[in-house]
Amino acid sequence: MRTGVWLVGGRGSVAVTSMVGAVALRAGLAEPTGCVTELPPLRHPQLPQLADLVFGGHDVIATPILKKAEALADAGVLPGRLVTALQPELAALDAEVRPAPRGATQAETAALITADIDEFRRRHELGRVVVVNVSSTEPAAEPHEAHAALDVLREALRGPVPVLPPSSLYAYAAFTAGCSFVDFTPSTGARLPALSQLAHERGVPYAGHDGKTGETLVKSVLAPMFAMRALDVRSWSGANLLGGGDGANLSQPAPNAAKAASKQRVLAETLGYTPQGDTRIEYVEDLGEFKTAWDLITFRGFLGTAMRMEFSWHGCDSALAAPLVLDLVRLTAAAHRAGRSGPLPELAFFFKDPLGDVEHGLTAQFDALVRMVEGLA
Amino acid sequence: MRTGVWLVGGRGSVAVTSMVGAVALRAGLAEPTGCVTELPPLRHPQLPQLADLVFGGHDVIATPILKKAEALADAGVLPGRLVTALQPELAALDAEVRPAPRGATQAETAALITADIDEFRRRHELGRVVVVNVSSTEPAAEPHEAHAALDVLREALRGPVPVLPPSSLYAYAAFTAGCSFVDFTPSTGARLPALSQLAHERGVPYAGHDGKTGETLVKSVLAPMFAMRALDVRSWSGANLLGGGDGANLSQPAPNAAKAASKQRVLAETLGYTPQGDTRIEYVEDLGEFKTAWDLITFRGFLGTAMRMEFSWHGCDSALAAPLVLDLVRLTAAAHRAGRSGPLPELAFFFKDPLGDVEHGLTAQFDALVRMVEGLA
Amino acid sequence: MRTGVWLVGGRGSVAVTSMVGAVALRAGLAEPTGCVTELPPLRHPQLPQLADLVFGGHDVIATPILKKAEALADAGVLPGRLVTALQPELAALDAEVRPAPRGATQAETAALITADIDEFRRRHELGRVVVVNVSSTEPAAEPHEAHAALDVLREALRGPVPVLPPSSLYAYAAFTAGCSFVDFTPSTGARLPALSQLAHERGVPYAGHDGKTGETLVKSVLAPMFAMRALDVRSWSGANLLGGGDGANLSQPAPNAAKAASKQRVLAETLGYTPQGDTRIEYVEDLGEFKTAWDLITFRGFLGTAMRMEFSWHGCDSALAAPLVLDLVRLTAAAHRAGRSGPLPELAFFFKDPLGDVEHGLTAQFDALVRMVEGLA
Amino acid sequence: MRTGVWLVGGRGSVAVTSMVGAVALRAGLAEPTGCVTELPPLRHPQLPQLADLVFGGHDVIATPILKKAEALADAGVLPGRLVTALQPELAALDAEVRPAPRGATQAETAALITADIDEFRRRHELGRVVVVNVSSTEPAAEPHEAHAALDVLREALRGPVPVLPPSSLYAYAAFTAGCSFVDFTPSTGARLPALSQLAHERGVPYAGHDGKTGETLVKSVLAPMFAMRALDVRSWSGANLLGGGDGANLSQPAPNAAKAASKQRVLAETLGYTPQGDTRIEYVEDLGEFKTAWDLITFRGFLGTAMRMEFSWHGCDSALAAPLVLDLVRLTAAAHRAGRSGPLPELAFFFKDPLGDVEHGLTAQFDALVRMVEGLA
Repeated sequence: MRTGVWLVGGRGSVAVTSMVGAVALRAGLAEPTGCVTELPPLRHPQLPQLADLVFGGHDVIATPILKKAEALADAGVLPGRLVTALQPELAALDAEVRPAPRGATQAETAALITADIDEFRRRHELGRVVVVNVSSTEPAAEPHEAHAALDVLREALRGPVPVLPPSSLYAYAAFTAGCSFVDFTPSTGARLPALSQLAHERGVPYAGHDGKTGETLVKSVLAPMFAMRALDVRSWSGANLLGGGDGANLSQPAPNAAKAASKQRVLAETLGYTPQGDTRIEYVEDLGEFKTAWDLITFRGFLGTAMRMEFSWHGCDSALAAPLVLDLVRLTAAAHRAGRSGPLPELAFFFKDPLGDVEHGLTAQFDALVRMVEGLA
Repeated sequence: MRTGVWLVGGRGSVAVTSMVGAVALRAGLAEPTGCVTELPPLRHPQLPQLADLVFGGHDVIATPILKKAEALADAGVLPGRLVTALQPELAALDAEVRPAPRGATQAETAALITADIDEFRRRHELGRVVVVNVSSTEPAAEPHEAHAALDVLREALRGPVPVLPPSSLYAYAAFTAGCSFVDFTPSTGARLPALSQLAHERGVPYAGHDGKTGETLVKSVLAPMFAMRALDVRSWSGANLLGGGDGANLSQPAPNAAKAASKQRVLAETLGYTPQGDTRIEYVEDLGEFKTAWDLITFRGFLGTAMRMEFSWHGCDSALAAPLVLDLVRLTAAAHRAGRSGPLPELAFFFKDPLGDVEHGLTAQFDALVRMVEGLA
Repeated sequence: MRTGVWLVGGRGSVAVTSMVGAVALRAGLAEPTGCVTELPPLRHPQLPQLADLVFGGHDVIATPILKKAEALADAGVLPGRLVTALQPELAALDAEVRPAPRGATQAETAALITADIDEFRRRHELGRVVVVNVSSTEPAAEPHEAHAALDVLREALRGPVPVLPPSSLYAYAAFTAGCSFVDFTPSTGARLPALSQLAHERGVPYAGHDGKTGETLVKSVLAPMFAMRALDVRSWSGANLLGGGDGANLSQPAPNAAKAASKQRVLAETLGYTPQGDTRIEYVEDLGEFKTAWDLITFRGFLGTAMRMEFSWHGCDSALAAPLVLDLVRLTAAAHRAGRSGPLPELAFFFKDPLGDVEHGLTAQFDALVRMVEGLA
Repeated sequence: MRTGVWLVGGRGSVAVTSMVGAVALRAGLAEPTGCVTELPPLRHPQLPQLADLVFGGHDVIATPILKKAEALADAGVLPGRLVTALQPELAALDAEVRPAPRGATQAETAALITADIDEFRRRHELGRVVVVNVSSTEPAAEPHEAHAALDVLREALRGPVPVLPPSSLYAYAAFTAGCSFVDFTPSTGARLPALSQLAHERGVPYAGHDGKTGETLVKSVLAPMFAMRALDVRSWSGANLLGGGDGANLSQPAPNAAKAASKQRVLAETLGYTPQGDTRIEYVEDLGEFKTAWDLITFRGFLGTAMRMEFSWHGCDSALAAPLVLDLVRLTAAAHRAGRSGPLPELAFFFKDPLGDVEHGLTAQFDALVRMVEGLA
């Protein structure tokens, strides 16, 4: 039975790259490079096949998917010949990504979202649907008393004033529709007690936050290296230069702060102390869909000898994120099918700011992931 | 009971840094930064205490240890105040590092080495002695039929023509003296069937090869990162610029080739394929006791998107190696005491080119090390 | 006849490194590495000899100069043996650097400064004195109507409210004492119409601003390179990580903004357009007296091909600044002697943010400097 | 009157990028980014217009120019839309690039080359033709006594054994045809006394060697920076990683040695001494038409403080070289027209290894170029 993927931000770079990739893999036109669930220790019959994924979603923008895919090809993210070869499939996907609905109250908006997802599930006869947030990063949400309990939240959603940030409203709608939810962004998403309650009530799992695609991925192996060698990390400073829509958004103070905090967490948790240093995010339009991160690490060895390491990472976020989105859909759907509900801390491998009290070293996270997959019935 | 450390190359940078550090730790003048066996998961009562290590060794050069320590302080490897504070202890060590003996045949040389170690053990009433090779890297050894079997080797050593490279003659002498042996260099050491036979016969363990202190350490966490993320590494090229005696030696074609091969092994074994690219070693006198390694990694993500990573590592080899020498002595002595003989593949964590068919990812190596320590009676 | 050097911030890193260097050069214990006025095209009999410089100054802190020099030696800025060898000379300098005076009004403070400088000149029988500001960077000054004209300023200084930032008050006092003034910081200094008027009235020259010692120095040759090759620079982003007191100060928003603006000016003036990108300054205590700057430059070539360049600069600001301070003193004293008054735009070679409408390419600036020296009578 | 450009290696990356660019500029489809002769101080009525250049050439390979251009578009060197738009023009150029002729003796080969150039000139009614070598780098040529004098050379060319490397045979043929010659490679070209004699005899100028497009360009501004600041450069080491045909060729020992020598010359000539360090060239197929150079520079400041700089240059050689080829054609043709013969040292700005005893600082070279252009009648 096929599995649905409902993409919040379905016309953005990550979403379109994910869809182009899934369609290309199905057509035998590409290799699953970057797809973790295709590695031997993670291949498992309980995971839905890549070919069985069906895509839909919401977006506030209306750019045709084919046009976006062509722009991504011009930007070096997708091979032009692939986009040309898949024109009919990409054009067909356009009907599946609908305008993001907007009701008079948040309760109404949630109902409209739920209805769209339900209709998508029925029409494609899908076994289950995974809702994935790949929209832009929100500013950190204002606390509200309605976040603490589901009944208070339900009441508050009916009022005229919004009480949930958009990512959390999507989690609410997904859970209400009996769907699992993955937050690939640093936004609030399901991280509210009321939503956790709802997920357990509806028996659906969720995962997040903030796909680990670049600098933090490197940190999650270098920080354990310093720790395992008992070296004393004194400072870790980073500059993140981003083009693309994400860069323009993240260079705004509020989303920047949300993202930067998420990026430094791995250090404190892996090293056991917090070295000096910040991560700055800057928007550099000329980088387009690519991103350059530079980090300087100063550390002390035996008897205090001062040493240092620098690295530069020149990556394409969409090309790194898209296969992980497909992985997360397969793993979350399989967990849902296996009866899991609530947070999935075993998926920490994929995230900068994982749910639960988990290891931050990448290898420990990979091992946890393998054990989770092996445990699927 | 105290444990002896017999340093082959006992007046070199690594040996002197190890001795200064051990003496400083005993005097409470330094922290054990960089000492892996002081990390909580590796602390174990079966390991000899750092304060119980007694140092001796051989060297072909005669520079006083104190003078070498002062030179290392000038070069930024050791704090000057520490060397000043420890003058009496360092001067006392001078008597323990003897001129490397040279007999008419290799059998005679081995007997002289054995006699020196025996005398050292008796005089200090040592429970056991670990012989550690921290001398300069040799050229790759010429094959010889005597390497294949112990009896043939014993016969050949009595002849006029040398059949063993110096590192292997030290392993032979150490085993003959009932001592364990650690090779911190890429030299041949105990890696000959005849010597393995001898180690088993005498019930002594050995470990090696080539301390993992810089670029390869970083490779051993970055290569698994690319592998765990299913990213396709296309090339991995490196430039190693070294000052100091090691740099001058390694820039010679023969030792360079031995070292460079050892450095690329981690890639093939971790990734499962060999990306294009070489590691070059160049001598740059001005770098002194420090080393700069630069690596460029090109890789492909989803749908073939080209990406890249660069890193620069500015490290001090002696400051990175010395605490590992102390760790290896403690672990090898404990293994010897626990009845282990032959190669110790669980110590792969410390080496670029480990013995045995072992994992090359650093985290897997650390886990193996923890299990070994936990298994000590 | 000897020339005085009055250092505002006379116990800081730059001042002490300058004094140690001058004393070491006089004693024949060091080479004039980094001294531009010792290069063949700039050697000139009209410049005062390095051995003829006499040092004094003001500071708000009281750390003995010898103690500061020892701290700089520990930090790798000065050779320890030099500081030891020069102990008597450095101790003697302590009496010459007085506490910064503070009167009831700014007029009074200026009079006290002037008196101290006069006394220094008389006591040492100095031909002339150059006042050099090497204190911490100030926040950008508030505009005030008294800045526009000398008579209004004189009146305002007598009032209870400060109207000049400290650097400008020193310029005022220097000019009043008939001394030339060099501002090695990005502070306001003499850049006010009232002070320009005073300098002309007293017949004294002045120079500034903000010593070009690191990243901007590199920019001042790379930006002309891109311009001369007609390459299209699209973005130029930088991260400046600084330890030391300057780093702690510059990471404060107000001085940071003053400094960062000064750093980007060279791009606009050399390229003829402003590429996207900022320079961020971050304080990283562990870097001590050193500084790491990383810049990413993205540019387009023929037919729009995207290319990039990165550089990392690991420099010691005091070691780069101190010889330039000596150069500036020699050049400014010679200009004063030759009858120059007002701004000295020919000294742009030394500054990030030079006075006057000058070239920003380093080679053009060097040529202008050579012409100025050749023109000294 | 129109000017011919005869490209030796007319189907290679540099040649095809030059032709595509010239055609695109003529069609108004591109900007002259990277064209130095379009900068205001170098625009001059005596230079032939870009629109008046007519292309032809020789090559040993037969790939159609359009196909090569498409491959360059796939590799990110040329915009795909430009290649599509210029299909007819590029297809037409195919007839102009003929197979490289090969006679029974070198004299015969030279005569065939001359005949092809003559025919090209006549057919297009060209005022003059500039022959430009943009073929692969040759191994350094064997010395031969015939190189010393023109009459001996003429005699030797008639013999059965080749006496000239291919680049020099092209220079011989060009001069014989009354054409000027530009060597954009490090090959021998016109650098033989016999050929200099011929150029003077025929009244034609020539220029070279080895287009300065990347790492050496950066060196030619950084080395003067260190020199002008009296800083002591202790080591300058580089790694050049190249994809593409040039990389495969240059990683061969003989061409590598020729190229590396040419790359270090700028240091000795600019600094006045030779710092330690080499430049290594390595072929990394995955880099395609791009090249990554990494340089580490260690230097000392005032009182010996150790500092360092690193840079990485990620450039596309064809995109950097092509506009310079057009510049060189325009400048050489104008010099020919103005009556110049023999070497043109004023064109040193363009070359790693310039002819004549010239300045190696880029700014001084630019100034020399401006003076040459201003001096055109």
